[in-house]
Amino acid sequence: MAGILYGVGVGPGDPELLTLKALRLLQGAPVIVYPAPLEGESFARSIVAPHLPGGQIEIALRMEMNAAGFPNDAVYARGARDIGAHLDAGRDVVALCEGDPFFYGSFMYLYARVAQSHRVEVVPGVSSLTACAGVLGAPLASRGDRLAVLPATLPPERLRAALAEADAAAIIKVGRHLPKIRTLLKHLGLLGAARYIERATLANQRILDIDEALAGEAPYFSMVLVHRRGAAWR
Amino acid sequence: MAGILYGVGVGPGDPELLTLKALRLLQGAPVIVYPAPLEGESFARSIVAPHLPGGQIEIALRMEMNAAGFPNDAVYARGARDIGAHLDAGRDVVALCEGDPFFYGSFMYLYARVAQSHRVEVVPGVSSLTACAGVLGAPLASRGDRLAVLPATLPPERLRAALAEADAAAIIKVGRHLPKIRTLLKHLGLLGAARYIERATLANQRILDIDEALAGEAPYFSMVLVHRRGAAWR
Repeated sequence: MAGILYGVGVGPGDPELLTLKALRLLQGAPVIVYPAPLEGESFARSIVAPHLPGGQIEIALRMEMNAAGFPNDAVYARGARDIGAHLDAGRDVVALCEGDPFFYGSFMYLYARVAQSHRVEVVPGVSSLTACAGVLGAPLASRGDRLAVLPATLPPERLRAALAEADAAAIIKVGRHLPKIRTLLKHLGLLGAARYIERATLANQRILDIDEALAGEAPYFSMVLVHRRGAAWR
Repeated sequence: MAGILYGVGVGPGDPELLTLKALRLLQGAPVIVYPAPLEGESFARSIVAPHLPGGQIEIALRMEMNAAGFPNDAVYARGARDIGAHLDAGRDVVALCEGDPFFYGSFMYLYARVAQSHRVEVVPGVSSLTACAGVLGAPLASRGDRLAVLPATLPPERLRAALAEADAAAIIKVGRHLPKIRTLLKHLGLLGAARYIERATLANQRILDIDEALAGEAPYFSMVLVHRRGAAWR
């Protein structure tokens, strides 16, 4: 009987934000697969490292982690082939996904390839979206709020139009786009109603005003949360 | 030393989608508090019921569960007083929150009252947003998508404007607003690109076309997911 590929959300960073289901699948699977940079540690693997039982086959999908987040087709194609071989041999495979697999995750590139020929199940995880709101100490959205989730990589005019239609917004993948975000928020009169969060739920998490954040270097995994009703968390 | 109020996300419904942190806090707290209907079982409590150690003080915030989701001020005020008394006596309190506490959750009404005088921490949970995408088997959003989260309770013109600016949308709190949603999606040419999901991750979950869903009665906790690129899940 063929194995199953599980796309498992491992949450935003704190290893304790793994779900019970993720833990069970992770510890029971003979094979785990995860994205990783060309050299060095995989963030997804580091989240679950305290829970790994050892002795599992590990497939690291090593690729250039560029800010645009473009997929590396050859890496995913080879990864899907390797995964398919394990599934055909009756071995379940757990793919580790930062946050949630279907919330702007790279799991979709594996899913698209493997689901054509094999059974794939998705286990949702805690996303960075709610993790950031939690550490900020302010509701992400409530009651009748229109919430917009916007990749910072979009052109300014598309960001502006969506921000104008929203009560609350989460701007994700901030990284080097922070100056553009600042200009937009200033024009819209929302600079004081925005906060910058990086590495939420990790020991080195930071919460900053936009101008404080501009003084440093924003990592790719950072987020700006905005709410029109403003500084509920002050 | 005063206790801490923890607002703990318990996920969308499957008891196995609780996080390890939620489980630890839940099982260690001398007091738990949760929203409940005037009569009958609390959904939040039912999610964690398999994990309860027994012997805990339980505070049920019983209130009319109306579709508009308006808070019952008197119930929350009394609940906050009761919680404050336990915290003052040095007892930690865990507030059970369906999904995530800060994602359209009623926890904000307790938070607003208790955080003024006591320490409150929020533990994020798996939200219905990503749980629905998971059971649907299609990415909620990816790459440069603008994602809109929209309460179905909004007037049609505000829903229409936000839908027009988005690549993907999650329409939440659907319930009796489904006919209005159908009309809007039809006008926008998005009817075929939308799916209705109720009770995601529970044994009785259902995934339907909008017209199939209209034939039945949509519960308050139901969602419509839309993606402009359409029927990736067909």
